[in-house]
Order: sequence, then structure tokens, then C-alpha cells
Amino acid sequence: MPLTPHWIRHYPRQHLRDDLIAGVLLTVLVIPQSLAYALLAGLPPQAGLYASILPAIAYAWFGSSMVQAVGPVAITAIMTASVLGPLAPVGSALYLQLAVWLSLGSGVLITLCGLARLGFLSQLLSKPVVSGFITGSALLIILSQLRFIGGIDARGNTSWQLLHSLWAWLPDIHAPTLLLGAGAVVALALARTGLKRWPMWQRLFPLLLILVCPWVVQGLALDPGERIAVVGPVSLEWASFDFSMPHPSVFSALVGPTFLIAFIGMVQGITMAQALATQRRERIDANQELLGLGAANIAATFSGGMPVGGGLSRSAINVASGAQTPLAGIVSGISMLAVLLLGTDWLNHVPLAILAANIIIAAWGMIDLSALRQAWAYDRADAIAWLGTASGVLALGLETGIAVGIGLSLATLLWRTSSPHIAVIGRLPGTQSFRNVNRYATETLPRTLMLRIDESLFFGNLQAVEERLGLELAQAPDTQDVVWVMTAVNRVDTSAMAALLNLNRDLKDRGIRMHFAEVKGPVQDRLVHTPLWTELSGELFHSVPDAFAALQASRQEPHDAALSI
Amino acid sequence: MPLTPHWIRHYPRQHLRDDLIAGVLLTVLVIPQSLAYALLAGLPPQAGLYASILPAIAYAWFGSSMVQAVGPVAITAIMTASVLGPLAPVGSALYLQLAVWLSLGSGVLITLCGLARLGFLSQLLSKPVVSGFITGSALLIILSQLRFIGGIDARGNTSWQLLHSLWAWLPDIHAPTLLLGAGAVVALALARTGLKRWPMWQRLFPLLLILVCPWVVQGLALDPGERIAVVGPVSLEWASFDFSMPHPSVFSALVGPTFLIAFIGMVQGITMAQALATQRRERIDANQELLGLGAANIAATFSGGMPVGGGLSRSAINVASGAQTPLAGIVSGISMLAVLLLGTDWLNHVPLAILAANIIIAAWGMIDLSALRQAWAYDRADAIAWLGTASGVLALGLETGIAVGIGLSLATLLWRTSSPHIAVIGRLPGTQSFRNVNRYATETLPRTLMLRIDESLFFGNLQAVEERLGLELAQAPDTQDVVWVMTAVNRVDTSAMAALLNLNRDLKDRGIRMHFAEVKGPVQDRLVHTPLWTELSGELFHSVPDAFAALQASRQEPHDAALSI
Repeated sequence: MPLTPHWIRHYPRQHLRDDLIAGVLLTVLVIPQSLAYALLAGLPPQAGLYASILPAIAYAWFGSSMVQAVGPVAITAIMTASVLGPLAPVGSALYLQLAVWLSLGSGVLITLCGLARLGFLSQLLSKPVVSGFITGSALLIILSQLRFIGGIDARGNTSWQLLHSLWAWLPDIHAPTLLLGAGAVVALALARTGLKRWPMWQRLFPLLLILVCPWVVQGLALDPGERIAVVGPVSLEWASFDFSMPHPSVFSALVGPTFLIAFIGMVQGITMAQALATQRRERIDANQELLGLGAANIAATFSGGMPVGGGLSRSAINVASGAQTPLAGIVSGISMLAVLLLGTDWLNHVPLAILAANIIIAAWGMIDLSALRQAWAYDRADAIAWLGTASGVLALGLETGIAVGIGLSLATLLWRTSSPHIAVIGRLPGTQSFRNVNRYATETLPRTLMLRIDESLFFGNLQAVEERLGLELAQAPDTQDVVWVMTAVNRVDTSAMAALLNLNRDLKDRGIRMHFAEVKGPVQDRLVHTPLWTELSGELFHSVPDAFAALQASRQEPHDAALSI
Repeated sequence: MPLTPHWIRHYPRQHLRDDLIAGVLLTVLVIPQSLAYALLAGLPPQAGLYASILPAIAYAWFGSSMVQAVGPVAITAIMTASVLGPLAPVGSALYLQLAVWLSLGSGVLITLCGLARLGFLSQLLSKPVVSGFITGSALLIILSQLRFIGGIDARGNTSWQLLHSLWAWLPDIHAPTLLLGAGAVVALALARTGLKRWPMWQRLFPLLLILVCPWVVQGLALDPGERIAVVGPVSLEWASFDFSMPHPSVFSALVGPTFLIAFIGMVQGITMAQALATQRRERIDANQELLGLGAANIAATFSGGMPVGGGLSRSAINVASGAQTPLAGIVSGISMLAVLLLGTDWLNHVPLAILAANIIIAAWGMIDLSALRQAWAYDRADAIAWLGTASGVLALGLETGIAVGIGLSLATLLWRTSSPHIAVIGRLPGTQSFRNVNRYATETLPRTLMLRIDESLFFGNLQAVEERLGLELAQAPDTQDVVWVMTAVNRVDTSAMAALLNLNRDLKDRGIRMHFAEVKGPVQDRLVHTPLWTELSGELFHSVPDAFAALQASRQEPHDAALSI
């Protein structure tokens, strides 16, 4: 792998201006969400700004998408909070330390997956499951942020816990905070729809709100007792993160969640990059993409200390700002550093309720009921997977929810492939074409069964194949020859090979010969060294017509009598 | 479902004598293993005898296999020990109580799976993974039984723990127990090979050893200090099991393992029943089989209080004794009751070392290295799955091991299906046959791409399909028509439908029309209600020749010039 990325070596000069402008715009426009997602992760809001520096640059260097913007994102943020919540008090030194380990660990894992070319693992989840997971997470995110809107301290990892806690805190709601927070939610929602015709103002609005709000609070004397929670003093100490190993028991509790965050990060990052590339007629390399995401998370260890990912709104802003190459990402990282160096006093008085309002609006946009409707109309099993995942996330929390989702994805896959289409075939009269005897008027040979299997053979569908053969033989007990037509069989795994070997022995005992026709080259290359080939009671025919002709001849009966239509 | 099983309503009278004899023989011959597996499960050995009464009858009534014998089996026994070990001291009232809940819970789960027709779930594991799991478990079983052979108290759930504990206990080995235990292992091993020509004596040998041993110990005064551990007094109190709910925290710790035991029970039971049915040219119904296994485990709640399953050696003895129908199982259940009622004093002095020797010999027979060799030669990925599962079981314990196995099964499946075979096809000159352009000399139309996908489309392989299309379009940038040839596509899931919809829009934007040819009926029935059909930029061709002819005509060029071979 060359050390300099492809896009730098062939950088198109005409894009330079676009990329520079987009990078600076991106920096300014993502400030609110960067602050908000750090808050969502249970970290000091400014961690989100730091996490937009080195990770953005690292991704630009190692990633494969031209326009994906990497930084703090909603899903990894709430997963961080959900993982670390039970292990350390929010805001404690241990919490910050564990967040650093989480981003380092998931970065290393993602990088290793990229190096091992395991990008295909990101396809372990079906679209309905991903959509159900994101919708469930979005609802959890909204519930988790209501505490900032109400100025209370309601917490929990599942919807029950959160609702229960919110209910208990209801009497303690701080009216001015609620006014400010609810007002911000309404204002942001209105801006989203009302400013559609002025996209730049629409995107600038969250930042303006953050800048204006402290003045409004002060000017109107909304908060005489100073009870509205604010970001507070921002430290510029980069290296304040603690790299010492936490206690082994805490550390081991981090291992599973690290895998999970890495996995979800992979799924989200690759899905996003893929979607962006399709829009722009570009191509991404899933494994290269993992190297980019992994590098970004490793870089986050030294810059922000929180897991990062490819963000939907962040990337959308990048594209809308005119970014053409990853140079925009590098520019945005450097600009963010400049913003921090120029001063962060303006951040001190930003109310947390405003940041929470930003999160709620972003989460609201992640709710995707149309995917459920679409799946319900198209394929009930996929709709059930959506519902199972979303309710799993809400009722049992993110980790269990995603496990439910993976289980449902694979169960539907297995359920579908476990009953392959199998057809008894015969010859179309006067041709060399063979078709399903139930759908066409065909000629078949007496005491001969030709079965075409329309799926690769593997551990999950052998039983169905054996059962079908059993049924057919029960209907035609005088069968002497069984021909497996392997036209559509692209693979035969070890379990299937063993099952075919047993079938061959079994049929031989019953005086039935077993043949194969049209076995594909790669399949044959494997089978040729197995006992199946040496013990095969029948023959190996190059084509179905060959098999038909040979068996017809072996019947040693007058030509016409041998055919039954 | 009729209340009386099929085999009773059509009972062939000529089998009555065979079944009666087989049932009685089975009872006598399985006494040693029933005692031994209860011991392995951490329960009083006599629980194994009780567990051979009602469960055997319940399975005979509800199951679908003609000759499978159900009772205590090695795998569920060691899983019981592994699950309950951390929750309660072996032999305590809580331990017995939890074992009852475990069998009840797994029985209910298996029954529900049967009623919901989820028998296909038992195919979630490939053959190499099952074999690796059984081999790993067998080695764990052997390690776990060495404590009885040595008269020490070495325990653990993983091979490390067991080896470490055995090492620590080494100085405390009780020589007479070791002599007896090791002697029994050698005697049983020799009987297995030496008595092959006298199968009935070979099968009776373990029982004779159990009956003779106490006399030998007494007669030779091997155990003057009475330190050789024996079964001890057998209680006949059936209903001594405690049905009260255990503490919620303990109970919730039981939920996951119950699912796991139910799942493994399903896999083992169905695999066994399938193998027996194949040998005997019979058929089983996987879902009916689950009802039988579920009923047996529920029945075990009242009789033995330990999870039961379909056993390899138990069923082999049943078949060898001449059983023809499940009546033999019912007879064996009643005979076992008679054995217990006639008296159990002879059990009191049976040394545990002898039972452990029986377990070790049985476990030794479960080690299946030939499956590993076979997989290694045939398909490296399957061999890796075998090794991963076996070492997962040994190093991390049964529960984690099986999770590793499921993961590896599905990862190989996904990895294989994630790159479907896709061929660009063209017409064989002078025919209506279409073949891969890379393998045959074919005619193709200019600016037209006909792609045949040789796999169903689902969430796991869309990316590969999109990538392939991207590659082909990059090679032929003047393409105007893309035809998806769907001959081998048996299903298009929601994710794939959405991806095709996106592709259609994307190609439309680039001025390329997207067509389909030979879409199968069931696939079309689903797609017809989706936006893909209404928005499709191209046409839907009945057959590939139709598509070829129509596109050829639309080119509006002289016939010959339009063909490039």
C-alpha cells in the first residue's frame, strides 16, 4: 500500500478552491453537533471539537470515500454512554479514561478487520435490521436527552429505565431550562422546514442559536439563580487523557462492548460511504474504508478521546459545502484546531439544553418508519426483523438490541436458504432443453429421476434436499437412477459433501445409482479428491442431454416405449 | 394433531415381540450410562435412572423417530454441570432445584420451537462445527471425570481451570481409587475392542463391572479405610424435588443457559433422529421430533430432574436389541420403574470411579478427528470452523465455545454467499442459448450488458453485485442498456429490492436503461407492488432471447454490424 493516498498523488488542481472553502464551512457548521454528540456520549462537550481534528485528518489520509466526513456521531456516542454508564460515574476521570480505551480498542479492531480484508462482515446486518436499530437508538437518544431539556438528572440504558427515571424526576423540572430547551427544539424544527429555500441559513441556524442563546439568557435575566446548566470552562490541555490501564475487571468489561462499537462503526461507516459513492458515481473499497475508520478512531485517542464514525449529517454538510476530495476533511481538521486556538470563551455559557435540543432534532431525523412500511408491504419476515430489532433496542438496551438484530438477520437468511427450490426436470419434446415437469409438457425416462437443485448446497439446506428426494422416491419406488443436475450449485460445503456421500451409499444399498450432471468446474475440483467421487455408484455427465441419452440407451428398450410424456 | 401417535394406531403386530424384548434389554444395558451421566451432571447417580422412565415414555408418545432412545446424555449432562456449577454447590438442594428448572425450561422452549415449526433452527450449525463442539466437549468431559478416577476434588469449567486444579490436587490422589478407576478404564476399553465378536457380552460388560466391582473391593479388602467414594443410599422419593422459585437473580442467570441447552438438545436430537432414520429408510419430521424432545424434558421435571436428550449409544443399543417402534421406549421406561421398585440396594456400593470410567470411555468414542481431517482436505474454512469451535470449548468453556461455533458457521456461510457468481452472457451463434462470454465464443449486442446472477439476492451480496456492475460499466462506458438475467435468483429480499431501486435511479440518471429477464414467478409476485416495477427505466422480458431480439431491434442498425463476436 503506498504511503500517500491515491487522491493526493493525482490531485485535480481545479478542486483546490472548492475543497478549501468546503473544509472551512464544514468546521463552522459541525460545531453544534460535535459539542452535542460529546455531551450525548457523557463527555465534556469540547471533546467533540477535539474529536473533529485528528480523526478527520486520519480518515482523509487512509479512507476510501471522497466526501465522507468523520467525527463524533450519534450512534457511537450513545453506545459509548450506554457502555461506560454502568462502569464509571459520568464526568469522572475513570469515565474519560475508559472512553479513550474504547476509541483506541475499536480503532485497532477496525484496522485489523481492514487489514484482514473482513469488510464483508459489515454486511452481517440486513437493511431492515440496520434501520430498526437506528430508529430504536434514535428514540433512546431522545429519551436520554430529555433530562437536559428539563434540567433534571433522569438516566437509564433502556426505555423502561429512562421513562421510570423521568417520571420520578418530574416534580424537579427546572422551568427556565425547560422553556429554553423546548423553545430551542421548536426553533430548530421550524428552521429545518421553514428555511429549506435558504440552505446555508438552515445549516447556520444551530450555530447562531448557540451563539445567541447565552446573550438572550443574560439579557432577559431568565436564569437569576444560575441553575441553567452550561458547558462551562473549556480546557485546552490535549494530553490530559489518562493512558494508564484501568483495573483488570473494568478492563475486561470493556472488551465485549469494544467489539460491538467497532462492528456498528464498520456497518455505519461502510453503509454511509457506499451511499455517498453511489450518489457521486464513485467507488469505495470496503477494506480501505475500514483502514480509514480505524485510523480515525486511533487518532481520536489523542484528540477528543471518544469513538468517532462516518456521520450522515456531517457528510451531507460536507457535500453541500462543495467538497470534492478528502482534502476538505484535512482542511476542516486544521480549521477546527484554529477555532480552538483562537479561543473558546464563547463556549462557556452555552446551555446544555440547547445542545440537547440539537441532538433531539438530529435523532428525530433518524427515525425511519418508511423502511418498516416498505418491508411490511414487501416481505413480512424483514418487517418482523425491523420491529424485533427496534423493540429489542428500546426494551433491552443497545447491546442486546443489536444482538437481537444480528440474530434476526441471520435467522431470516437461514430460514430462506434452508428450503431451496428443487425441480424434477424432463426434456422438452424435440429439443435438448430440460424444464420443470410440473410447468412444461416434458418427456421423462422410466425409472429415472432427474432433480435440479437451484441453490448452493450447504449445512443449512441438506435436510430439505434429502427430504425432497425421499418424497420423490416414495412416489416412484421403482426408480433405478437418480441424476442430480448441478447447474445452479455454486458451492458444496463439507457438510453437504458428507451428506451426498451418505446418500450415495444409502441409494446404492437400495439398488439405485446416483449420477451428477453439469457439475461446475470449481465444485468438481473440490469433490474429485473425496470418497464421493471414488465411491459414486453412477456416472458424471458433462451435460443434461448427455445424461438423458446415456440413461435412455442403458434402458435397452425400444426408443419410443422408453419415453413417457 | 391426533392424540394417539401414528405408530400406535397402525401398530404392526409382528413387531410386538421384538419391541418387548428390546425394551427390557435396553433398560438393563443403559443402567451404567444413566448412572454415569447423572454423575457427570453433578446430580445423584440414581437421578439418571429416574430420567430413563417418564422421559423415555413421553418421547415415544410425541417424537417422530422410530428407534431413537431418549434419556440422560453426555452433552446435556456436562452442560448442566457447567451451567449450575457457578450457581450452586454440587449436591446442594439448590443445585437439584435448579436442575429441575433447567429441564423444565428447556423442555418448554423445545416444545414451543416445535409448535412454531422452527425445526430448521437446528440447522444453524454446520457439521464441522457440531463435530468440533462434540470433540471439545468430550475432552472437557474426560478432564472433568479424572477427579473421580483419582479420588480427588479437581473442578473447573474450562480446560485451563481443570488442568490447574488437577495439578494442585496431584499430591492427594487416593491410590486404591486410582487403581480401581484406571483398571476400569482399561477393562472397558479392552472389552470394547476385544468383545467385538460377541456384541451382547460387549454391551453387558459395563453392567457386570458395576455389579462385580463392590464384591471385588470388599473381597480383596482394597479399601480398608472406606475412602473409595460410592453411590450411597438411593432414595425412592420421587417428589422430593423442590418446585419453588429460586431467587430472582439466580433464576435470571438460568435464562441464557436454558436457551443454550434447549438449542444444543435440538441440534443433537434432530441430527441423531435423522441419522437413524436414514439408516432404516424411514423419515422423521423435525418439528414433530422437537415436540418429542420437549415432552421428554418436561417429563424429566417429574422424573429425574435433569435435562435429557437423544443419545448416540443409547439409541445404538436400542437398534441392536431389535427395537422396531417407539413401543420399545415405553417398555424400557416401565422396566426401569420395575428395576427401581425391585430394589436399589445393589447400587449403594458402586464406586463412583467405575461410573467415571464409563463416562471416559464414552467420551473417548465421541472424539472425531476424522471430521477435522476430512474438512481440512476438502474445505479449509470448514476445518478452521472445527478447530475454532473445539478450542473455543476447551479454552473458554461450553457456552462460549458454542457461541464461537455458531458465529463461525454463519461467518463462513455469509462469506461464501457474499460473493455470488455473476456472468456477462452472450448468445451462442446460431442458437437461442446464452452463455458466459468468457467461456464460450458468443455474440453480444453493442452498448448492451447482459448480466446473469447465479444466486438469490439478499443483504449479504448486494455490494458484490453493485461492485461488479460498476466494474463492467467502467470497462464499457458507452453502455445504454443493462439486462439483469434472473434465471437463478430465487429470492430478492427487502434490502436487495431497495438496492435495485437505487441502481435503477442511478442508471437512469446516467442515461442507462435497466431491464430484467426471466424473473421467476414468486420473485415477480413480490416485486410487482414495489416502486422498482413502476419506476423501472427499462422493460421486463419473459426470456433472454426475447430481450436479445428486442434490444437488437431497438439498436436500429444493420443486423450484422450489430453483432460483435
